[in-house]
Amino acid sequence: MVVHLIGAGPGDPDLITVKAVKLLNKSEVVIYDRLANEEILKHAHNAKLIYVGKEAGKHYKSQDEINEIIINEAKEYSEVVRLKGGDPFVFGRGGEEILALKKEGLKWDLVPGVTSAIGGPTSLGLPVTHRAVATSFTVVTGHEDPTKKEKQVKWDYTADTIIILMGIGNIKENTAELMRYRDPKTPVCVIESGTTENERIITGTLENISQKKINPPALLVIGDVVDIYKEIYE
Amino acid sequence: MVVHLIGAGPGDPDLITVKAVKLLNKSEVVIYDRLANEEILKHAHNAKLIYVGKEAGKHYKSQDEINEIIINEAKEYSEVVRLKGGDPFVFGRGGEEILALKKEGLKWDLVPGVTSAIGGPTSLGLPVTHRAVATSFTVVTGHEDPTKKEKQVKWDYTADTIIILMGIGNIKENTAELMRYRDPKTPVCVIESGTTENERIITGTLENISQKKINPPALLVIGDVVDIYKEIYE
Repeated sequence: MVVHLIGAGPGDPDLITVKAVKLLNKSEVVIYDRLANEEILKHAHNAKLIYVGKEAGKHYKSQDEINEIIINEAKEYSEVVRLKGGDPFVFGRGGEEILALKKEGLKWDLVPGVTSAIGGPTSLGLPVTHRAVATSFTVVTGHEDPTKKEKQVKWDYTADTIIILMGIGNIKENTAELMRYRDPKTPVCVIESGTTENERIITGTLENISQKKINPPALLVIGDVVDIYKEIYE
Repeated sequence: MVVHLIGAGPGDPDLITVKAVKLLNKSEVVIYDRLANEEILKHAHNAKLIYVGKEAGKHYKSQDEINEIIINEAKEYSEVVRLKGGDPFVFGRGGEEILALKKEGLKWDLVPGVTSAIGGPTSLGLPVTHRAVATSFTVVTGHEDPTKKEKQVKWDYTADTIIILMGIGNIKENTAELMRYRDPKTPVCVIESGTTENERIITGTLENISQKKINPPALLVIGDVVDIYKEIYE
């Protein structure tokens, strides 16, 4: 009867919210994406678990197929959790799922999570804002929907700090675009698998970061705040 | 010996992370700012509580004074928590506090929190990103440090969605600046006291929102995603 759209946080299973844990505890069904750490699912003691994320070598479910699964479960069970990494609305396509539920007259509520865009840098000690250095930050996806006819991302972002999620697949193209607007020497910090045991940090500049070996999932933090991070750790 | 810099989340006491609760449980001292809900402090069963936020009519502590308090407590106690609303690095001045601790050779770690910039809109059902509508968002402070000689905020933000924190004091000036770059009819959603019992929503456009009665604390979400929110709730 109610679908709880829940953000699971950036990776570390303890970076989930208390609210999310309470709802997972009483859930009957959990429909989940690929998570940085599946340990979070242990909170769903009694739930049927349905994985709808990508699997290497297999057909992966379209958003329409996922919507249909959520709707079918919501018609059968009272306590359905739709669990996503990070926050449901930061490139989580939560809005589309809610519009699909609304069309069917089904109920939902929302539980925000710590997005990896902020949780990744913060856990590390990399401040996305810092007095006199950065009073604004932009979060953008590095992997725009490839089916879109016209690219929406223009890369002329004016905020002091730029954070690119899903930043590796197109890192060469995206950093080249950014250099049309920013100094090639602008410092960059790449966070691989942020807040997990596999976390790895790579620093560089806009002009050289794409030549380094980086393993997804990773995000990029671009701007002078990276120098503050270096000052903190030097 | 360790100062844990912790984000308390956007207001709802259950939107704190599990990690934060565990650290508050064993804390000996908690140095805290003004919180949307002080119920969070109940997790610090045995701690000495030190308030360093603003109080109406009183001198409020400078960042230097706050740093000194943190350093003194960290020299005396093993488990010190520095608790901030939202996330410690989203206009939380966490970077300055860490640099001050580093200077003294003291240890710290960081626990990200759900920032009100994202947690406020998400809890409400207002997606800050949405397919084909918004593939980027910028978070900026509406209240730039008044002691700065030159204003750093330029307002020519190019991201699809703009989120202004501490957005009310200068709402007239800031929306006027934004209209130099954006259509005056751009939809705006104001979230007063997001995720708390006092939450109140006001919608309008860039050209009329500053004429409405708004009580701080509040944030502004600006962009076509506000129309998705309206579609979800209409």
